[in-house]
Amino acid sequence: MSKKHNFSAGPCILPQEVFQKSAEAILDFNGIGLSLLEISHRSKDFVAVMDEARAIVKRLMNLGDDYEVLYLGGGASLQFAMVPYNILKVGGKAAYLDTGVWAAGAIKEAKKVGEVDVVGSSKEDNYSYIPKDYKVGSEYDYFHCTSNNTIYGTQIKEFPKVDTLMVCDMSSDIFSRQLDFSKFDLIYAGAQKNMGPAGVTLVVIKKEILGNTGRENMFSILDYSQHISKESMYNTPPVFPIFATLLTLQHLENNGGIAAAEERNITKAKLLYDAIDNHPLFETYCHEEDRSLMNVSFKLIDDSKKEQFDAAWKSAGISGLNGHRSLGGYRASIYNALPIESVQVLVDVMNSIN
Amino acid sequence: MSKKHNFSAGPCILPQEVFQKSAEAILDFNGIGLSLLEISHRSKDFVAVMDEARAIVKRLMNLGDDYEVLYLGGGASLQFAMVPYNILKVGGKAAYLDTGVWAAGAIKEAKKVGEVDVVGSSKEDNYSYIPKDYKVGSEYDYFHCTSNNTIYGTQIKEFPKVDTLMVCDMSSDIFSRQLDFSKFDLIYAGAQKNMGPAGVTLVVIKKEILGNTGRENMFSILDYSQHISKESMYNTPPVFPIFATLLTLQHLENNGGIAAAEERNITKAKLLYDAIDNHPLFETYCHEEDRSLMNVSFKLIDDSKKEQFDAAWKSAGISGLNGHRSLGGYRASIYNALPIESVQVLVDVMNSIN
Repeated sequence: MSKKHNFSAGPCILPQEVFQKSAEAILDFNGIGLSLLEISHRSKDFVAVMDEARAIVKRLMNLGDDYEVLYLGGGASLQFAMVPYNILKVGGKAAYLDTGVWAAGAIKEAKKVGEVDVVGSSKEDNYSYIPKDYKVGSEYDYFHCTSNNTIYGTQIKEFPKVDTLMVCDMSSDIFSRQLDFSKFDLIYAGAQKNMGPAGVTLVVIKKEILGNTGRENMFSILDYSQHISKESMYNTPPVFPIFATLLTLQHLENNGGIAAAEERNITKAKLLYDAIDNHPLFETYCHEEDRSLMNVSFKLIDDSKKEQFDAAWKSAGISGLNGHRSLGGYRASIYNALPIESVQVLVDVMNSIN
Repeated sequence: MSKKHNFSAGPCILPQEVFQKSAEAILDFNGIGLSLLEISHRSKDFVAVMDEARAIVKRLMNLGDDYEVLYLGGGASLQFAMVPYNILKVGGKAAYLDTGVWAAGAIKEAKKVGEVDVVGSSKEDNYSYIPKDYKVGSEYDYFHCTSNNTIYGTQIKEFPKVDTLMVCDMSSDIFSRQLDFSKFDLIYAGAQKNMGPAGVTLVVIKKEILGNTGRENMFSILDYSQHISKESMYNTPPVFPIFATLLTLQHLENNGGIAAAEERNITKAKLLYDAIDNHPLFETYCHEEDRSLMNVSFKLIDDSKKEQFDAAWKSAGISGLNGHRSLGGYRASIYNALPIESVQVLVDVMNSIN
């Protein structure tokens, strides 16, 4: 198999070991003579997977027993609804930061539950920076932000201090950098970037924040408390995506954890941003201080070079480099699992354009 | 790999070809040099999977363009909420048939949306039969039933004629028998029995039934119309579970479709029920006329034989035969993919007990 240099924005590259081990588990799981796909989710072999998948997140994030870890279906988009449904009080209001189309999607859904104030937005500048001059007081039930914005290549570097609950959609940069995760009350992330394949969403939640909204008659499946009480097995969970996620997180833990991943990510990003900054034909999309370590959105200054550049990166075995359809240009997603060798190939191709 | 005889109730046995082909796709998908797990869901290779996965359902069910096919995350339990949320009118009421714990779960969630009448229930007899003497008039927005009840081993043989929309949870017997699917307005099914692995739910819906509830400000992710307008790609879909489901349905289509599967299922079920009926030590759990072709729930008449029987089936390589925790006894799930050879092994083991 001729491996490509996969810069896809997500679903995206995962460690090769994850592909190998998950393919093996589909043929014979744990040597039990059955496929991972055909065993009960309540069998001891899968319960062990779920238990470890929940435990490893707490170890990697250095969180204690006041937090619960859930693996849910439905995608991060389902969390856009579940977050306000579970923690926006009846008659209360929430503060949201608008940093891109995914943040805007979360805002749209929260407004269906209650009052929402958008405390900062860079929409008028097509989300090319992260708003910073805002305050969030205790009049809000919670503050919601999106840590990394894949389309524009922006990332929150310093999280604000807020006088309310801190909620973050970390779908596109979770486990990529060291953070004090105990500063967050609710973190969620679709798996399909740094964590695993599509089909499962991680929710990390401080238990004490639940049960305070006054909302009655909640749908069970949308109620975090129900999922917590069943140890993330309220209903049949997405077995294979959870298993592949566990493999990815084990690979992370076995390779130095988040600290080492962050070092590698900084090195990769510097290599690529330096190449862009030093090249007369390329420029990044966003403000320099908000540049993402995960998604490098850039464009050609001279569009007449497009054909040459596109032919060059394609012939170098690079895939997934086209920018999001809403923005055009290019986007190099350099998630945890992308090797620096792939970044070097891209840099070499860029340097061949003149 | 020493294959077992897998009678698991779900997730359950799938065609061996599905395990082989899905493992291959994880290592290299379509020969593109990338894993199925690391490609964009909007890549042409995966869009083709989604398109075919939607089309094959209509072919197998013989449905026309008035129906839409969706593959959603969140499990059939999410559909317990989405069904009333989308088709129970504000101020309207729905009729539900209570044939087991899953039907009861659907009823519980529907009551959070509006008025629900339980038009028939066998709960007082621990769900050992399917209620039949009920009428559903046009005063109801829809009628909801569960076609097959895995725990008790009951199955609806004749669907009622109702004067309203017909909604059916077919999670545990979809694609196992010929039905006039055009009699149904909404069918849903968690994939993890006859369709594929855990992590995706099929929804087949007659388009014209949507948009009539008067419900405003619906969560987008819970709105069938949103998913339909995005051709089941409203958000990142569960890529791998959908691909494995497509493989399973292709295997079904290539092996005579539903008609041939039904014949095989009748033969398997007859072999097992005859063995139970002819054996002095075993009996089924439910009324004979409601016996399921998919799940055979049975018990020992003489509990002193339990140790002998348990040792015998385990040593014969049988797995997944224990009854549901709420009922005890045994449950042989004989889904589409279970070969008749496995049923024969079980029958031989039963006949060795005396």
